[in-house]
Amino acid sequence: MADVAAEAHVSVKTVSRVVNREPGVRPDTEARVRAVIERIGFSRNGGGHALLTRTQTIGLVIEDLANPFYSQLGAAVEREARIRRYQLITASAEGSPTRQRGILKGLVARRVDGIVIVPADDVPATDPALVATGTPVVYVDRPVRGEAADIIVSDNAGGVRSAVEHLVAHGHRRIGFLGDLPDYWTARRRREAFVDILASLDLPGEPRVAMGPHTDDSLATVLAGWCRGRDPVTAVITGNNRVTLTVLHALRRADLRLALVGYDDFEFADLVDPPVTVVHQDPGALGQKAAQQLFGRLLGDESPPHTVVMPTRLIVRSSGRVPATAPAGAPPAGPRSPRRT
Amino acid sequence: MADVAAEAHVSVKTVSRVVNREPGVRPDTEARVRAVIERIGFSRNGGGHALLTRTQTIGLVIEDLANPFYSQLGAAVEREARIRRYQLITASAEGSPTRQRGILKGLVARRVDGIVIVPADDVPATDPALVATGTPVVYVDRPVRGEAADIIVSDNAGGVRSAVEHLVAHGHRRIGFLGDLPDYWTARRRREAFVDILASLDLPGEPRVAMGPHTDDSLATVLAGWCRGRDPVTAVITGNNRVTLTVLHALRRADLRLALVGYDDFEFADLVDPPVTVVHQDPGALGQKAAQQLFGRLLGDESPPHTVVMPTRLIVRSSGRVPATAPAGAPPAGPRSPRRT
Repeated sequence: MADVAAEAHVSVKTVSRVVNREPGVRPDTEARVRAVIERIGFSRNGGGHALLTRTQTIGLVIEDLANPFYSQLGAAVEREARIRRYQLITASAEGSPTRQRGILKGLVARRVDGIVIVPADDVPATDPALVATGTPVVYVDRPVRGEAADIIVSDNAGGVRSAVEHLVAHGHRRIGFLGDLPDYWTARRRREAFVDILASLDLPGEPRVAMGPHTDDSLATVLAGWCRGRDPVTAVITGNNRVTLTVLHALRRADLRLALVGYDDFEFADLVDPPVTVVHQDPGALGQKAAQQLFGRLLGDESPPHTVVMPTRLIVRSSGRVPATAPAGAPPAGPRSPRRT
Repeated sequence: MADVAAEAHVSVKTVSRVVNREPGVRPDTEARVRAVIERIGFSRNGGGHALLTRTQTIGLVIEDLANPFYSQLGAAVEREARIRRYQLITASAEGSPTRQRGILKGLVARRVDGIVIVPADDVPATDPALVATGTPVVYVDRPVRGEAADIIVSDNAGGVRSAVEHLVAHGHRRIGFLGDLPDYWTARRRREAFVDILASLDLPGEPRVAMGPHTDDSLATVLAGWCRGRDPVTAVITGNNRVTLTVLHALRRADLRLALVGYDDFEFADLVDPPVTVVHQDPGALGQKAAQQLFGRLLGDESPPHTVVMPTRLIVRSSGRVPATAPAGAPPAGPRSPRRT
């Protein structure tokens, strides 16, 4: 700050006022100070973010703000930013890697001090848009390809294991997994965990797995297929809160009763009939941890990049206890699908 | 732009590159151009936002990003911003007018081009922090005191009327209203509408109204009180999605069956037992309309400020059809509260 003051022929206090956008600086003086800051800022760019050029702004790139998982994660990041007097630019990539690249370019152009991002799968940790500027980045919910990144994910395998074990403890042997789009790392990770855990438990038959995209109708058809024949599925695990919503509709549509453990807690889970047992990964805790990691970097934490795995928790209500019997009631309502086994 | 180019001894194209943060400008040239822009920008400040000093950023100030109402509203604002290549700074005031003032100061200091805000009640349309800079502001969900503001609200009175009429059509005569904190304009507005509509329908007795803060326990006590005596309430209307969640818990806790119409739709409303009839105000449409109004102002729309009232829609499921009889089952579980009539 002293170099800037000397170069611009002003006091350090004046530089501080300009940087903090406090009043009391004449416009032409402010312009001169800013010009010096820009110049020095540029010459320092190779070495990362100079403290002086901080914008006190961080970026948050998520999938979709309207999804409660991300809005809770976002609210936590925003809270961490606010208590440090930072502002938060929020942007939803809506599953599009192209859109995400555009968002990142925009954030870097606006010189955000750091970025918390739920990465689209094809973004490697070495993405030039991020690395070139030296902007610190923390990845959350999904990791990125390559080494050397700060990553906060939840214990997906542990979460799926707790769901399977809960259902097995209630007598279920034929359990299906309904995942979201296989484009999503979390969807693939949870599917893999499901298959591995079933194998380790030595349950009979091939694991039944259906990945998205799902609609109420398509899932009703899948479930009706799984419930037919000699070896019907009696319980399902979902891959996230979107699939839980769809499967609850599908079960009604197909008039099926199946035990269910949902991935992700949701607000009215205890009020649904039957109340839904879920694997709770705390999106607020993920967001908070990611933001804290980012602000640590901004404060000079130079420890090696690392991955933090946040625990999940099974919240037992009663949907996992539905009797492990063949489905009751009317025949499936959906159109027939080919037998899968 | 030509003045800046002349003053800085560069081409208009170079000024445009600097303004749009495009590459290909030497650092010292960029600094010179910026210094000129700052100078000219300052002398123009009285006349509002000069196009040249645009940051392509808008601010969104809401109550709480983790509340699905606001996250859906925010997602719509963000979408409108993104298609215009604007970025969105999101901040939650969490019901604190002090925090809101701090957020506004921060946004203005960062020279956002415009602001969409869910105002805390004590912020008048003439708030100096906003008016002084000439930053266009659109108020959404709640109006502000005073004249001359762009305001997007939903038809709160119409929404409450549709709820009352639905319940009356199903035979209910004693209907209670459970509102959120009376600090909120929407909570007061819906309460007023409720009282007015009851009076206009010439229903017997005094209207029963309970405003927040509510907990599951406190609401259970209120409801148990309302259901005792000669003239029990048979149906309730909630003031928003937060109260709906609480009242559903309270009804279970007090072991009461009451007809219910909730204000605000919610994701699992059709899966709750019984499925919840709601007044649907579309938060996405509110956010979209507010953002469109703001971008209209940024493009030079100089029509007089005005208020837009967005329609609500009753989504009929079955919670309004619960028989209008005295509550079934066990005596109220909560502690006794004094009789209210």
